[in-house]
Amino acid sequence: MNRSIFLCAVIFSGCTASHDLKSEEKAIRDLLGRQETAWNEGNIDTFMEGYWKSDSLMFIGKEITRGWTATIEGYRTRYPDRNAMGKLTFTFYDFEFVGADACLVTGRYQLKRTADEPTGMFTLLLRKMDGKWTIVYDHTS
Amino acid sequence: MNRSIFLCAVIFSGCTASHDLKSEEKAIRDLLGRQETAWNEGNIDTFMEGYWKSDSLMFIGKEITRGWTATIEGYRTRYPDRNAMGKLTFTFYDFEFVGADACLVTGRYQLKRTADEPTGMFTLLLRKMDGKWTIVYDHTS
Repeated sequence: MNRSIFLCAVIFSGCTASHDLKSEEKAIRDLLGRQETAWNEGNIDTFMEGYWKSDSLMFIGKEITRGWTATIEGYRTRYPDRNAMGKLTFTFYDFEFVGADACLVTGRYQLKRTADEPTGMFTLLLRKMDGKWTIVYDHTS
Repeated sequence: MNRSIFLCAVIFSGCTASHDLKSEEKAIRDLLGRQETAWNEGNIDTFMEGYWKSDSLMFIGKEITRGWTATIEGYRTRYPDRNAMGKLTFTFYDFEFVGADACLVTGRYQLKRTADEPTGMFTLLLRKMDGKWTIVYDHTS
């Protein structure tokens, strides 16, 4: 019994130790970088590939939007054309891993548009599902 | 070996299964309720007991504030007296457990003041440390 518990501890701590958070952070940065690129190509469909395609996706703006479909509709309403979309830049401040398969990302978005330059903070929760990181929660203010 | 892995699985799944998320949610609601009460008594010190007393605490408003001390100073600056504090009400929309010892809480705050009624959304990350839930991250917009 003691030996079993010991083995158990070894297996699980090994599992955590071997988990390279730096490479996970890179995978997340790559995903968000692909979003930035897609946005700047005017491609909201590709931008939305960063989000969990689920009714459980949550987007917090002034109100709560639930689900992938309502979230893409919200983007299409707020950003009807390339002019409204402008040029997007993300700046990342913090990657906080909550366990091995979840990460809270803090950053700032900046849009350069002809008329104005809106900016704000975001908090994202990403989860790793089937080996792939995906945004399951986005609070942008 | 097979028996050890089996035992290991049993121990860990038991660990998760016995974890009653409803009672954890209640513990978190109680903590945030105590914050609400403290606020409405004009007691920012007691309100701040809900937050992790650490330099790693993060508060996201228009900018990032790092650390417990800077966070309480921020509150004291924005809310110098009872009039500025007003009457606080929290409304909770979502408790998303990220593992057994972390929870993302989505809600709205509302302040009733003589002059105005500011309101906004918040995302909190709470962690359970030494058996006690504490806010480690607050994005309020």
